[in-house]
Amino acid sequence: MTEHPAWLPTAAFAALGRRHVTLDAPDLDGTPALVLGSIVGEIEAATSTYGGSLTRGAATTGLHLVLDPDAGLGAEAFMLASTPTVTTVSASDASGLLYGLFEVVRRGEAAFGRDVPASTIAPATSVRMLDHWDNIDVHPVMGQVERGYAGGALWFDDGTLRDDLSRVSRYARLLASIGINHLCINNVNVHHTESTLLTTRLEWVATLADIVRPWGVRTHLAVNFNAPAALGDLPTSDPCDPAVRAWWATTTARVYEAIPDFGGYVVKADSEGQPGPFAYGRTHADGANCLAAALAPFGGLVHWRAFVYNHRQDWRDRRTDRARAAYDHFTPLDGQFADNVVVQVKFGPLDFQVREAISPLLSAMPHTHVGLELQVTQEYTGQQRHVYYLPEQWHEVLDWRPWGGAVTQADVVTGRAPDGLDGGIIAVSNVGTDQFWTGHPLAQANLYGFGRLAWDPTLDPAAILDEWIGLTFPGADPLVGQTLRAMMLGSRAVYESYTAPLGIGFMVNPGVHYGPSVDGYEYSPWGTYHFADRDGIGVDRTRASGSGYTGQYHQPWADVYESLADCPDDLLLFFHHVPYTHVLHSGKTLIQHVYDTHFEGAAAAERMRTDWQRVKGLVDDAVFARVSERLDEQVRCADEWRDQLTTYFWRHSGIPDDQGRPLY
Amino acid sequence: MTEHPAWLPTAAFAALGRRHVTLDAPDLDGTPALVLGSIVGEIEAATSTYGGSLTRGAATTGLHLVLDPDAGLGAEAFMLASTPTVTTVSASDASGLLYGLFEVVRRGEAAFGRDVPASTIAPATSVRMLDHWDNIDVHPVMGQVERGYAGGALWFDDGTLRDDLSRVSRYARLLASIGINHLCINNVNVHHTESTLLTTRLEWVATLADIVRPWGVRTHLAVNFNAPAALGDLPTSDPCDPAVRAWWATTTARVYEAIPDFGGYVVKADSEGQPGPFAYGRTHADGANCLAAALAPFGGLVHWRAFVYNHRQDWRDRRTDRARAAYDHFTPLDGQFADNVVVQVKFGPLDFQVREAISPLLSAMPHTHVGLELQVTQEYTGQQRHVYYLPEQWHEVLDWRPWGGAVTQADVVTGRAPDGLDGGIIAVSNVGTDQFWTGHPLAQANLYGFGRLAWDPTLDPAAILDEWIGLTFPGADPLVGQTLRAMMLGSRAVYESYTAPLGIGFMVNPGVHYGPSVDGYEYSPWGTYHFADRDGIGVDRTRASGSGYTGQYHQPWADVYESLADCPDDLLLFFHHVPYTHVLHSGKTLIQHVYDTHFEGAAAAERMRTDWQRVKGLVDDAVFARVSERLDEQVRCADEWRDQLTTYFWRHSGIPDDQGRPLY
Repeated sequence: MTEHPAWLPTAAFAALGRRHVTLDAPDLDGTPALVLGSIVGEIEAATSTYGGSLTRGAATTGLHLVLDPDAGLGAEAFMLASTPTVTTVSASDASGLLYGLFEVVRRGEAAFGRDVPASTIAPATSVRMLDHWDNIDVHPVMGQVERGYAGGALWFDDGTLRDDLSRVSRYARLLASIGINHLCINNVNVHHTESTLLTTRLEWVATLADIVRPWGVRTHLAVNFNAPAALGDLPTSDPCDPAVRAWWATTTARVYEAIPDFGGYVVKADSEGQPGPFAYGRTHADGANCLAAALAPFGGLVHWRAFVYNHRQDWRDRRTDRARAAYDHFTPLDGQFADNVVVQVKFGPLDFQVREAISPLLSAMPHTHVGLELQVTQEYTGQQRHVYYLPEQWHEVLDWRPWGGAVTQADVVTGRAPDGLDGGIIAVSNVGTDQFWTGHPLAQANLYGFGRLAWDPTLDPAAILDEWIGLTFPGADPLVGQTLRAMMLGSRAVYESYTAPLGIGFMVNPGVHYGPSVDGYEYSPWGTYHFADRDGIGVDRTRASGSGYTGQYHQPWADVYESLADCPDDLLLFFHHVPYTHVLHSGKTLIQHVYDTHFEGAAAAERMRTDWQRVKGLVDDAVFARVSERLDEQVRCADEWRDQLTTYFWRHSGIPDDQGRPLY
Repeated sequence: MTEHPAWLPTAAFAALGRRHVTLDAPDLDGTPALVLGSIVGEIEAATSTYGGSLTRGAATTGLHLVLDPDAGLGAEAFMLASTPTVTTVSASDASGLLYGLFEVVRRGEAAFGRDVPASTIAPATSVRMLDHWDNIDVHPVMGQVERGYAGGALWFDDGTLRDDLSRVSRYARLLASIGINHLCINNVNVHHTESTLLTTRLEWVATLADIVRPWGVRTHLAVNFNAPAALGDLPTSDPCDPAVRAWWATTTARVYEAIPDFGGYVVKADSEGQPGPFAYGRTHADGANCLAAALAPFGGLVHWRAFVYNHRQDWRDRRTDRARAAYDHFTPLDGQFADNVVVQVKFGPLDFQVREAISPLLSAMPHTHVGLELQVTQEYTGQQRHVYYLPEQWHEVLDWRPWGGAVTQADVVTGRAPDGLDGGIIAVSNVGTDQFWTGHPLAQANLYGFGRLAWDPTLDPAAILDEWIGLTFPGADPLVGQTLRAMMLGSRAVYESYTAPLGIGFMVNPGVHYGPSVDGYEYSPWGTYHFADRDGIGVDRTRASGSGYTGQYHQPWADVYESLADCPDDLLLFFHHVPYTHVLHSGKTLIQHVYDTHFEGAAAAERMRTDWQRVKGLVDDAVFARVSERLDEQVRCADEWRDQLTTYFWRHSGIPDDQGRPLY
């Protein structure tokens, strides 16, 4: 069975396919020529289906594609212009032309027959990257794909590289169509087998790199910081040891012999048990720079994750605040990282929760390339069983104003802010061998949206959703789009409403991170507590009486979050410990807010399920069935969240629901 | 490395080995002769080490062993008599003589040189059985041995029967030395591979039966109720279907061809997802009797577990009480079970907790063979990392008076009570491939004590402990025994004091059942709730306002447990929901009791660790090291229990500890 085409079904190419297309490009060697081949293949496939044609040379009608290295357009950028008779896409490199072609596909008929002056469309950042947390060996706890909810890994299968990698090419095509240009193929928790992708299994990486290269995608590897000792038989992996540095240099040179456009290394060091520079009394700058030095001659990058915290915290110790950790560890190192190091920072200071404050570290290292890490895989956000349109949340992150003014978070991480350096936008993939790629068919929109936002962080999530709907369900009854918009826009708010309230986070089943367990992490070493007692709940992160985390923010946020009066409701419990009777800006008490949101949230999930029934027969049966099955689970799980959360709060507070709904 | 000899080190045979032993036995064929061979082997090994001798015939000094089928002693019984010059053991069967020989070993020098009139020693019950929850395949969650804390299985290893089964023989010898005579070799959760022990893998069972037979041990199999359909290709496993009954008859006949003394089947039906008669609209009597009919011609037994309850309960539903389930399911069937069926009932109505009320079902089926099921493996009792001398708890169960009068629970299950039928005493093994057999060396005493109590339920746990110490540490410095008594007597009370209080049970980490998680099962489908809120805690099982479970007891207990005033403190929360301020019979409030017991319990664990240090150099170094390591873990875990439990109660009640100890 062939997998679902996602947002690139044949019909999405109808407008292109009906045109006479002319391609005006020099003969090129090497990488760009491969990408040019993909461009030609796309056009030939579309025109052969819909009656158009492809020729070389100049054009007066239809679509004119121009690849001109001297055009002066930036890398990967393209210029789009149209007259009533011809639409022209120009680029200085083949990747730019490929992205322009997909822009034409996205616009469909609207790309043609109009008079539109030339505009240049360029990516906001040079690195738009997906990280796969794929293992070679099936991990006894985490499985083939860590935090994967969409079947197996596209390239690995129970200890080996798959024989049939044809789907990898189709995957790279999907990525190219949304502008993703960097791909890390293995889990950041690099176990022993996976660590050998760097050495004895390097040919597997080369094979994959060959497959994705024609789609403008560069391949990266997650590496184990301890590789010099573990793989190189050195007595140490000290990043300042000359033999260690030589090992990385030699090893990296071999990688580039096999993969000339290799992207670089992704490193999770001193994090949740992974090895790192601390063991040698070195800083994270020492660690990252050691690898960076090995990569620099070849133009490779180090993505060095800032997810460093004490994961063996004592729950009794309220002075330690995990939220502080990344900032405390990394800001003293600002300016010390090599120019080809990206410090990769999760959007929030904890771990991809439905609601957390935005990480202050993202705007605290002006002399460092800071990359923003998002998570497309729905680890804490419903695991591709719940509808959760992530671009709504990402938009909030990207559009946040770290200084309260015009400069957005996106400006900072893409280097557009004053003093800013481009760090790129990275996300953890939600894709696997599942028939629909993503388990939940609607979760395809999250991958789509990630690519689009990484390309242009100013895009409106609702507009992205419309694009995705138009491509994925071409020609569908308008009720389909209407239903999907009703279900997906606001879906983050729905999920938030029936899960952990007001920024408190977690309350999930330990390990699996799915379904409610209010106290699941309360007495754990993971640093994620809510401190509920009979009087109140929340984490005091103020400077006045708490962990002082509010002091990591620039103004106005340092004071806004500090103040109980000013703190936004939706982050109230992230910053303050308050009684159940605390009155929110909404006018409701905290306890009544918990009751109301949970009953309303579960009801909203039920409405989604009802809404979806309207499109039966209007969408592919398999899509309908899979979404229906997932909605059943979402409703069941939302009811469970509602009842456990409201009961927990009721048992603690003793305050009844003013609507008299059932509590247990 | 040879494993630890447990309670049968060579030195334990010194008194026997120094004697002139005469064996007066007819030449016998078949099974008894095999047992006679074991007797001869024991004597030869002992006398060759210590200078004694073995001859056939009559005797005037030393030890005289007489096997006389016409002696008129009961099965497995022996008569023991001594004069200052000769000690005589007589029996009517070889098993009786074997048990008599081990009684002499147990008594050591005290068995000789005294004038002791003849007394007959007979087992209280004919079935003293160990159930192994061993899997053939390593289960992805439960491993090689379900709820095993002592390494792998003695006979299975990752999908196969072990090549080297020599240890099985040594194991059977240990069992014989404590009177255990029935052995079920596989897990009651019978997965597909294990189900074929009944058919295509039957020769493995026969091999094991051949090994244990010389030690008077009969082999049983746990079978899957769905075997006729799963293995026999029948369209149903309906126990009333003639083809199903024929399948069981034929299959069972084949088992007896291979294993003439096969013990019978153990069945977990309609329990925690296992198949059973309910699927066919049949009763558990129908189900058990179907198998019993197949076994009856050969003298085999069905052990049919009464552990039937709704394991998919809704935590919101307080009308359903798991504690009621076994009684409600089984008492209506009293009188309907075939005579070779034993209904096997766990000692408590829940699941082997540190403290629960004793199952009312055990004394509610006068027309049924009811067997008592205990658990030597420490699933909920510290998993062989905590010192927990189980015979103290078992004694409480065996000596309990279901009618308040002279008749004990032991009398009922061994058929000594008026109207009683012998059902036997069964326990889940704690043994594996561990060097010390049981993980924690001191947990050997639990296996020892189980055998001794199954043989004679009136034995005093302290006396059993002294026996075990004397055998296991022969000739040791008196400080060893003194230390072990200090650590082990009262160890159940210590464990209870730092874990779930006053009979409430559970509060463990779900799945693994180790370490604290107060709310771990509170919102689960397993039917094990504590209902803590800001005001109080406990399960109302009264007739007046609760589940009515108290009504399952005979008087006086039905009223004692019903009454808040009369209910024993240690079962208070098992029967009643009370406020934290409730005053116990001890005079303390519930909340202060929780604080006091938890701080004292953790301190007691610390004292155990300190005490143990005194025997360094006085016991085998490997034993010392292993126990020390376990004690470190016990102390760590007890501190965690203390802090999580006291903090949970503090956060809920808001009532401070009157000693001002730390709460979080």
